[in-house]
Amino acid sequence: MPNPTQFRLDHYPSGPKMTGVWRQTSDPVGSPDVGEVRVELAYLSVDPGMRGWITPKRSYMPPVQPGEVMRAFGVGEVVDSNADGFAVGDWVTGFTGVQTEACLNAAMLRKIDISHFSPHLYLSGLGMTGYTGYFGMSDIGRPGAGDTVVVSAAAGAVGSIAAQVASKLGARVVGIAGGSEKCAYLLDQLKLDAAIDYKCGDIEGQLAATCPDGIDVYFDNVGGETLDAVLALINRHGRIVVCGGISQYGDMDSVKGPANYLQIVAQSVTMRGFTMRDYLDRIPEAFMALAGWHMAGEIVFREYMVRGIEQFPQAFDMLFSGGNHGKLLIVI
Amino acid sequence: MPNPTQFRLDHYPSGPKMTGVWRQTSDPVGSPDVGEVRVELAYLSVDPGMRGWITPKRSYMPPVQPGEVMRAFGVGEVVDSNADGFAVGDWVTGFTGVQTEACLNAAMLRKIDISHFSPHLYLSGLGMTGYTGYFGMSDIGRPGAGDTVVVSAAAGAVGSIAAQVASKLGARVVGIAGGSEKCAYLLDQLKLDAAIDYKCGDIEGQLAATCPDGIDVYFDNVGGETLDAVLALINRHGRIVVCGGISQYGDMDSVKGPANYLQIVAQSVTMRGFTMRDYLDRIPEAFMALAGWHMAGEIVFREYMVRGIEQFPQAFDMLFSGGNHGKLLIVI
Repeated sequence: MPNPTQFRLDHYPSGPKMTGVWRQTSDPVGSPDVGEVRVELAYLSVDPGMRGWITPKRSYMPPVQPGEVMRAFGVGEVVDSNADGFAVGDWVTGFTGVQTEACLNAAMLRKIDISHFSPHLYLSGLGMTGYTGYFGMSDIGRPGAGDTVVVSAAAGAVGSIAAQVASKLGARVVGIAGGSEKCAYLLDQLKLDAAIDYKCGDIEGQLAATCPDGIDVYFDNVGGETLDAVLALINRHGRIVVCGGISQYGDMDSVKGPANYLQIVAQSVTMRGFTMRDYLDRIPEAFMALAGWHMAGEIVFREYMVRGIEQFPQAFDMLFSGGNHGKLLIVI
Repeated sequence: MPNPTQFRLDHYPSGPKMTGVWRQTSDPVGSPDVGEVRVELAYLSVDPGMRGWITPKRSYMPPVQPGEVMRAFGVGEVVDSNADGFAVGDWVTGFTGVQTEACLNAAMLRKIDISHFSPHLYLSGLGMTGYTGYFGMSDIGRPGAGDTVVVSAAAGAVGSIAAQVASKLGARVVGIAGGSEKCAYLLDQLKLDAAIDYKCGDIEGQLAATCPDGIDVYFDNVGGETLDAVLALINRHGRIVVCGGISQYGDMDSVKGPANYLQIVAQSVTMRGFTMRDYLDRIPEAFMALAGWHMAGEIVFREYMVRGIEQFPQAFDMLFSGGNHGKLLIVI
């Protein structure tokens, strides 16, 4: 068993450069206190939302403090327990942090059943990522049959789920992604109705060509010029689900807001943001739907595995360069 | 009887300057065709929303074409009728255009009862202006008792109605206006709970001081830095009613979107736009509520009257300099 490894936040990034933001440590892990379990991590989730946790601004959860282990979702196996209801050999998920092994408060963890689903699925399609795409589309976007739905970052972790849920609801779905490989994936694997390669430019023109009846629902992961292009084509009473704005995460101090936002007046549009905080009590609904589709082979959960915790800084950067195809996971 | 006067759109403005955009004509008015009435106008409404009608961009109604009489709401008296159900002496309201007299399609007009309310009230508190404030606040903002509501341009035509409706719903209401006279009006006449003078700067600081429990509902007429300041203080599940963005109307080609818009993700905020198109079938509800409060002396409709149709260009400019106090009307 190698030494434990942690990745800690050294300081908040200023601007887009992440150089030096992380500090790798090898602090020993002791025995669990009362109410704690010692967990050996198997997989870690690397998400764009983590960028918001290392910004000293008000957000939906407090920022990680410099010196702390970086916050991340993970799954792992209990190897020592000092908590009622948790036994050695149980598998758990929750905010485990970017580390190989840790003593964690059991009350903040959720046990998972790995007899039916591989553990890593609880970080992708059957975890927060899947639930986010599910609720964002089915509860906020609410497309009707025949509606035109556009999803940005549609080859990504959340976007690919949201797009497939929209198809399930009977909508016509147009996905936006970067590069021909990802666009082929949208059409061939996710079975979307059309794909737009934003790297080819003229997003508004491409949207107009693929959405001849305008846009009824937009699931936004990227913000920036894509959001403006959609606003120019949004239909009356359209809905914009704001899940993220990855194009603006590079420099959180100079975010560019949507210049076309007054279209929400002209077209009576609803633009609504959410996080999974809003749906914690409804997780079983999402799990049942997604697990059912998965078992029936009706939904694709693509994962992109990076091996070794020491790859964490490179993996994090990859999110913003679009290098990963699907849900980015670290295999420990 | 002087010659009829019309103000026509000469060309679409480029940038904030309105010089030369209007062309005054004195074309004769003939007899009404079948289905038409000839109307002598008594009052015209001058609204910020008119700026959107002289922009050759997609909006909620087609732009006015160069050469056409400028679109405007008005009230007037029928002086000749060739339409069933309309008689000489009837008073009507609708899109009459910026002119002193005209033959208009009777199907596009609504008869008004001037025995209980002065005709000009049908352009201010008992007209589209009043209905807009009423529905925007009661149907979209939906503040609960004790909620903190912020209204920008709160001394203005729509804002003053929206703010008073929020008070009626039991909310704590903070109004934003420009200058000490308008702020005194918010407190003394509209009886709001606090007033912010945006001309004193530091809007975010002033908002933080007057909204110690954060902001639950924001009724936005202005956009720009005020919207960003509110987003920085919005509460979880807050609602932003987007009624207009007058700070951005000066140059419709370089609108600045809200840089803090990602707070709508972090705080699960709903930002929703509307126009009166959405509520045409519910006008009687707004009329009954507003007329009832007006007769009971429980709501203030302030009007700012400019005399003479030849003042139209100056009146229009006044909207954007904040020179008018209350609903801007032209008395013909």
